[in-house]
Amino acid sequence: MATHARRAPDAPTPGDGYVQSFARGLEVIRSFSAEASEQTLSEVAARSGLTRAGARRILLTLQTLGYVEGDGKLYRLTPRILDLGFAYLTSMPIWNLAEPVMERLADAVGESCSAAVLDGSDIVYVLRVHTHKIVSLNLNVGTRLPAYCTSLGRVLLAGLDDAEVKARLKASERRANTRHTATEPAEILARVQQVRRQGWALVNQELEEGLISIAAPVRSRAGAVIAALNVSGQANRTSATVMKEQLLPKLRAAADEVSSLLGRAGRG
Amino acid sequence: MATHARRAPDAPTPGDGYVQSFARGLEVIRSFSAEASEQTLSEVAARSGLTRAGARRILLTLQTLGYVEGDGKLYRLTPRILDLGFAYLTSMPIWNLAEPVMERLADAVGESCSAAVLDGSDIVYVLRVHTHKIVSLNLNVGTRLPAYCTSLGRVLLAGLDDAEVKARLKASERRANTRHTATEPAEILARVQQVRRQGWALVNQELEEGLISIAAPVRSRAGAVIAALNVSGQANRTSATVMKEQLLPKLRAAADEVSSLLGRAGRG
Repeated sequence: MATHARRAPDAPTPGDGYVQSFARGLEVIRSFSAEASEQTLSEVAARSGLTRAGARRILLTLQTLGYVEGDGKLYRLTPRILDLGFAYLTSMPIWNLAEPVMERLADAVGESCSAAVLDGSDIVYVLRVHTHKIVSLNLNVGTRLPAYCTSLGRVLLAGLDDAEVKARLKASERRANTRHTATEPAEILARVQQVRRQGWALVNQELEEGLISIAAPVRSRAGAVIAALNVSGQANRTSATVMKEQLLPKLRAAADEVSSLLGRAGRG
Repeated sequence: MATHARRAPDAPTPGDGYVQSFARGLEVIRSFSAEASEQTLSEVAARSGLTRAGARRILLTLQTLGYVEGDGKLYRLTPRILDLGFAYLTSMPIWNLAEPVMERLADAVGESCSAAVLDGSDIVYVLRVHTHKIVSLNLNVGTRLPAYCTSLGRVLLAGLDDAEVKARLKASERRANTRHTATEPAEILARVQQVRRQGWALVNQELEEGLISIAAPVRSRAGAVIAALNVSGQANRTSATVMKEQLLPKLRAAADEVSSLLGRAGRG
């Protein structure tokens, strides 16, 4: 999983109006993870960079609001925290529109299918449809991956201008995940420019050995790239040629359908 | 969807340590929804009960941290907000353990299958596996339903003592969703007590006409009910008898398997 800058690239820097206590409170929520599912006051303070007194006040507030529960010694998040993340999902009509289209796509191509948006130099999965079996995917939603080495990321980067692409690449921790990974900004930019020209991205084992994926943009009515859909498969089972000749047309049709539904819903 | 009290029933009331600005900031996040996906400063202020100046400071802070984006006029949440909700999902090992068990269960019974936890007088879905087709379920996760009229809710309520069950029922807005819905606290309590004795709950069209579901508890090593799994179907296709005779044994085996995996993982 990629690390990422906490601050959006074009957001203002903390200034007069900045509410430090609110920002710290959000850090407390984020201090909980698979490795730290239950934390003591001291652990929360250490992980979120607060004093014990400060961490205690935030935990007390979260507990009062029902977002955290604790026995006075160990604290853990409650499911009410989901309300915060899902405020995003339910507030974005695109995902309701995209869901049935993606289900049909996954059915038609017999491969897993995902949708993501760009956040800084990461992509964030928002919908995933697996095909290997009936499956619940929620644990994958919200997952971040670096944009530079993923097909979804290349499509989303291609929606920015070159200066912005360079800035995002520079901000990204680029690693040779496999022997195929492009890590030089100039080389990645060239691939992004090609994606911009052709309207789709194929990434062959740059994220992980054996993983191949192809992505296409979802566009607003004004033509801006607002999301990307992809189909991924196993490179030894589905070659790049099969991806391009057999899956790409269906993928592009699905992405265009989501774009047009979105335009019709007046959200483009 | 149920309304719910904002405060957890047994949480402390706001006192000395309470950080008002943090609580208000969380309200700003929650003010975004399907009906209010993009908001002006004034709308955010009105929906979250803040002054314009207060709302402006919170929005600026959220924007600085990359949780909100805006053009100075309209604000919307960014996918980074998902990090907050998913801090809960990834911090709870139970959901990773439960997922494959639930997939097998849905496969075996050919019906949809869900897992939920209790939050106040609501249940909150945390995993859902549909069977009608390959499907992504994230839009359903985080959904709330009232506990009093759902099989998952009855199982979760049965894990509390009677006084606590009564308190939760009292806090709940009980409605006759259908002609089968029990709405009287005494009647619901009697059904919850029966669930406690028999170890499972069958709810037949009390939430919605035509919807039938059966649920079983996931328990900690100490025996506390920490979550519930259910299988639901269409009443005209799957009778209560079929539910009890054919689906219940498989459901209970799955719930027991999750309980035992959890115990083995040292999280019971």
